[in-house]
Amino acid sequence: MGEKFRIAIAGASGYAGAELVRLAAAHPCFTITAVTSEKSAGQAVSSVFPSFKGIVDHQFEALAPEALTERADAIFLALPHTKSQDPVAICIKAGKPVVDLSADYRLKDVDIYEKWYHAPHGHPQLLRDAVYGLPELHRTAIAKSKLVASPGCYPTAAILQLAPLFAKGLARPETIVIDAKSGVSGAGRSPALSYHFPEAHESLEPYKIGQHRHTPEIEQELSGLMDDVGSVTVTFTPHLVPMNRGILSTAYCKLVQPMQLSDLRDLYREFYRGERFVRLYEDIVPNPRYIKGTNYCDVGVYMDSRAGWVVTVAAVDNLVKGAAGQAIQAMNLMLGIPEDTGLTAAGSYP
Amino acid sequence: MGEKFRIAIAGASGYAGAELVRLAAAHPCFTITAVTSEKSAGQAVSSVFPSFKGIVDHQFEALAPEALTERADAIFLALPHTKSQDPVAICIKAGKPVVDLSADYRLKDVDIYEKWYHAPHGHPQLLRDAVYGLPELHRTAIAKSKLVASPGCYPTAAILQLAPLFAKGLARPETIVIDAKSGVSGAGRSPALSYHFPEAHESLEPYKIGQHRHTPEIEQELSGLMDDVGSVTVTFTPHLVPMNRGILSTAYCKLVQPMQLSDLRDLYREFYRGERFVRLYEDIVPNPRYIKGTNYCDVGVYMDSRAGWVVTVAAVDNLVKGAAGQAIQAMNLMLGIPEDTGLTAAGSYP
Amino acid sequence: MGEKFRIAIAGASGYAGAELVRLAAAHPCFTITAVTSEKSAGQAVSSVFPSFKGIVDHQFEALAPEALTERADAIFLALPHTKSQDPVAICIKAGKPVVDLSADYRLKDVDIYEKWYHAPHGHPQLLRDAVYGLPELHRTAIAKSKLVASPGCYPTAAILQLAPLFAKGLARPETIVIDAKSGVSGAGRSPALSYHFPEAHESLEPYKIGQHRHTPEIEQELSGLMDDVGSVTVTFTPHLVPMNRGILSTAYCKLVQPMQLSDLRDLYREFYRGERFVRLYEDIVPNPRYIKGTNYCDVGVYMDSRAGWVVTVAAVDNLVKGAAGQAIQAMNLMLGIPEDTGLTAAGSYP
Amino acid sequence: MGEKFRIAIAGASGYAGAELVRLAAAHPCFTITAVTSEKSAGQAVSSVFPSFKGIVDHQFEALAPEALTERADAIFLALPHTKSQDPVAICIKAGKPVVDLSADYRLKDVDIYEKWYHAPHGHPQLLRDAVYGLPELHRTAIAKSKLVASPGCYPTAAILQLAPLFAKGLARPETIVIDAKSGVSGAGRSPALSYHFPEAHESLEPYKIGQHRHTPEIEQELSGLMDDVGSVTVTFTPHLVPMNRGILSTAYCKLVQPMQLSDLRDLYREFYRGERFVRLYEDIVPNPRYIKGTNYCDVGVYMDSRAGWVVTVAAVDNLVKGAAGQAIQAMNLMLGIPEDTGLTAAGSYP
Repeated sequence: MGEKFRIAIAGASGYAGAELVRLAAAHPCFTITAVTSEKSAGQAVSSVFPSFKGIVDHQFEALAPEALTERADAIFLALPHTKSQDPVAICIKAGKPVVDLSADYRLKDVDIYEKWYHAPHGHPQLLRDAVYGLPELHRTAIAKSKLVASPGCYPTAAILQLAPLFAKGLARPETIVIDAKSGVSGAGRSPALSYHFPEAHESLEPYKIGQHRHTPEIEQELSGLMDDVGSVTVTFTPHLVPMNRGILSTAYCKLVQPMQLSDLRDLYREFYRGERFVRLYEDIVPNPRYIKGTNYCDVGVYMDSRAGWVVTVAAVDNLVKGAAGQAIQAMNLMLGIPEDTGLTAAGSYP
Repeated sequence: MGEKFRIAIAGASGYAGAELVRLAAAHPCFTITAVTSEKSAGQAVSSVFPSFKGIVDHQFEALAPEALTERADAIFLALPHTKSQDPVAICIKAGKPVVDLSADYRLKDVDIYEKWYHAPHGHPQLLRDAVYGLPELHRTAIAKSKLVASPGCYPTAAILQLAPLFAKGLARPETIVIDAKSGVSGAGRSPALSYHFPEAHESLEPYKIGQHRHTPEIEQELSGLMDDVGSVTVTFTPHLVPMNRGILSTAYCKLVQPMQLSDLRDLYREFYRGERFVRLYEDIVPNPRYIKGTNYCDVGVYMDSRAGWVVTVAAVDNLVKGAAGQAIQAMNLMLGIPEDTGLTAAGSYP
Repeated sequence: MGEKFRIAIAGASGYAGAELVRLAAAHPCFTITAVTSEKSAGQAVSSVFPSFKGIVDHQFEALAPEALTERADAIFLALPHTKSQDPVAICIKAGKPVVDLSADYRLKDVDIYEKWYHAPHGHPQLLRDAVYGLPELHRTAIAKSKLVASPGCYPTAAILQLAPLFAKGLARPETIVIDAKSGVSGAGRSPALSYHFPEAHESLEPYKIGQHRHTPEIEQELSGLMDDVGSVTVTFTPHLVPMNRGILSTAYCKLVQPMQLSDLRDLYREFYRGERFVRLYEDIVPNPRYIKGTNYCDVGVYMDSRAGWVVTVAAVDNLVKGAAGQAIQAMNLMLGIPEDTGLTAAGSYP
Repeated sequence: MGEKFRIAIAGASGYAGAELVRLAAAHPCFTITAVTSEKSAGQAVSSVFPSFKGIVDHQFEALAPEALTERADAIFLALPHTKSQDPVAICIKAGKPVVDLSADYRLKDVDIYEKWYHAPHGHPQLLRDAVYGLPELHRTAIAKSKLVASPGCYPTAAILQLAPLFAKGLARPETIVIDAKSGVSGAGRSPALSYHFPEAHESLEPYKIGQHRHTPEIEQELSGLMDDVGSVTVTFTPHLVPMNRGILSTAYCKLVQPMQLSDLRDLYREFYRGERFVRLYEDIVPNPRYIKGTNYCDVGVYMDSRAGWVVTVAAVDNLVKGAAGQAIQAMNLMLGIPEDTGLTAAGSYP
């Protein structure tokens, strides 16, 4: 296999971080050299996540970004929003490729970042260099970049299900409704009443209606596809559903002119031709249960011609294509290895 | 308590039928005299549903509509679609008040019925007499009627969450998107692969996109509120979610003119003033877990003013306000007893 | 209905407390006059539990036991273990009947209490007057008592499934294995990692193996049935299962002499003859789904004659027969009203 | 990588079969040449299991054992009980190594087979050659065998959690109680009322008490460890729990003489030293959530010295170590490749 890249994962005691550890541990070109966690520093990874017993021998350590850059050839940061700004800058300064899973470098417009995240941005100049880490849209730029901001889980589904329509100028931007549903792991690993089992089970919770922070990412990318920044404003409603993993996003839009469903599907096929991680569905409808543990984004396009709406459905595993898997996909590109390395295993079913 | 009404429940081995038995057994003015089921005829109700052991002593019998009319003062029919046409006619001929839980008498336009249900209607003249059994919209007509067609589970939520907007002419009819999510009991009690536990668990399934049969009910009622039959065409996407009971409906619409959220909420409050079974939410968002086992429809109105959408959320228990409870609410009106009789218990939590 | 008893419920922001509120609100002889909660004092009950919106108008208040005794004819205390010792004493001093849902007055032997609960008992003399609130075993004593200690959820199932064997001296006391499984509401409403949805879902957790505090209650009561205190030592393993409500207890024992299954079942039938809340099963096996929201304890007796074991299965709703319902059943006895008042509704299914 | 073994999988449209396909597709030394299914013959594997879309290109075909032997170097049979007898014989006659996942060749005593499976055995002479496919107990024999009968899911957990005690003669054979809990995928993929989502969710179902067909396997293997066939009779109670995957087995036994827990744990460590797929737990208790999708059997040993019982807990993924993974582990041995080939990926969490 040749020499392996030394990999550091910061913020690895959350679910996305643990998923990075899982995928990196099985990645044929990676060898993990450091995993950090503020709250679990000093503990064995396998005592926090017994699933790693016998597989991952590391201990969590506290984050020391400078030191980390010396022990790793490539760095994943899965830190909370706003906490990633400085560590990214330190890694970049050290010349190491970074995939940042937080929102800190996703939004090109610093004002929009500061408005939605209620925090100043300490490195606005780095935002210019950061690439939004959705390989299906930005493959070439990712491959050339040192700093990739990995997309949010909801935006991954929402952008991929709508991208072909926007790229071709077919969608009426003012008609976009995105109704998304996520498993509870999307809320992270910190206990709170909303995620307490008896509250979240036999429950279905819309939240942050019209106010979720993933909204501006979606708008940035869809606008970008139209070459018209700021031209798209979507309404986005996330819901918490009683399952562990998976996002299902149902997006509605009207077309600028009538189309046949078959033509629309041809257009999607063309747009995603050769994409390893986008699967297009017709008779079967995408469902999170088909993509558990995998890096796929499954997309289906349907038409309610009676009512005049296109309905697209996308499913991702929020922790893989919606987080850790996509981050590795981008890093593979940055490191010049095949894009799907370490990401080819089938999902378990059921 | 005075004399009780003798009640027959046909089709009681499904979930909606069992819920009718549960509620009727505890109803202070009802005494159950017959429960029918083709597939369980001859078995004790409590052997099919052990939850009734010690509470309901009846046996299931095969359906014989004429005979039934002699043993009951009021009749609930929870039969499959198309199977209810004749039994309803027989009960009506016998002069007995009927609440029909099937779709057979919900649609005023027989052509629309035949198109969506792929079956002829044998009693189109009876359609004219039938009242759509949503008391919040048709209370007076229900009270005077002998034949009430109880609404579908999804339409109950969808109509109630949108009715005030349509009644006031505020909604732009071409902008209505209804994204609804249902627990699996909504699919009935017949086993099939889609509802097999390992398939339906950790799963989220959109189905019948743009083609669900509850769509024309919603359009009929919203059009009716505008006094303009046929004027409303909605896109409706149901989803199956891994919970037993409950529907959450998220509906999107644009207004004919901008409004303040507070004014909109005032309008809902006014529209539903005095309604026993509609609860309006503001800070807390409706969630099926708050209405389990109850006849409430919880409604919340939110505004994404940035994107120009009104987002309404409604929650019902698909087997109560979406089926058995609403049927009893209507029957109470038809029998001249207080509308909430037998429907006042709080839901269990969690 | 005549005059109603004024009821106070202390510790009502937990799940057992909320269930007391639900059942008391529908109880024909009760009127709630006070509900307390330290952490939610000042909030409306219906804002903490939206399920009560439109049904329960009270506000939570801080607990002031003396004042409470003046505003209530009967008092339920659903406080944490060790926190109930003094409030009980105050209520008793004021002459008001008390059902205490904590463990503080369940164990007759103060040493055993202090050993298992790691706390001194401030009112050992009151322990002598307290009655263990399992009506099926202590009906007469409960009816005469002012202080009833309501059993734990696991012991309710375990004792009722084994009582006939011990009462008749048929069980070999050294062979008792109790393997019990509980829904997560049994762990209370305080969030913690073990009950965080993604951890508790698709999970099955044995805990406190051989060390659960409900063990001495079981031993006390089974020993008592043999008139030989201290003669029974059981091994008890609780498990957390991914459901909201319900306990299933599977208990194993060997008999002092061989018996026919039919004779054993006759013995159970005789023992529980006339018991309103114990249902005996044969072909169907008890399952928490048959008793949701109800005060039943369903019991089934089976025999593995090949291996020489009697296997008994019991199901209760941990929040009803395992907590609030049983407390009301006892209070009904204490107040001289029919034992099943307010406890007769069928469980919802599914 | 060298030449790959051509692999046939018969009965691949069930859950265990699909798991064989998943693991075989990722196995570095396997290439799948045929997958069979009677009911799905002619359909693409990826249309029956969309999770395989883009990964597995095969079509299901009808089973033709002779033809299969020509197209495969090694054969997995995941057929229903009794249906595997002849296909196994045909494969053996053709000289191809077979791992049979049915029960048809697990029991050495043909009378016991015929009694528990209510069917004659057509190839009793082959039973003598068959090896029970639990590598931790029969590694050498498996490696030399052409016919391996892969253990049932429950026995895998039960035998491994008790084996050290029996191998050392420490357990009192008449005291063994095995209380096991399984996710619903263990019941297979054919819909039935018991596995219908609304019935199996919020449900906990003991079944086949003292009568489950996995019992004689457990007794055969534990007796074998004592070198005293027929000496062990266990009582075994399986339960269906509302999760997709995973078995948790809680087994109770008394010792022939008192021991310290630390000595007992040393004994387990010694017994399982070097075993790749048995992980021993102490403070953390085994839980199916730690082994999802993996070939581990996690085992914990605890002692209730107060009551005089040893309590052991084992967790397996019923579809991996309890079926497909264990079958591959055995086949690896039979083919002379490293035992853990294709079985090293960490489980996903959560």
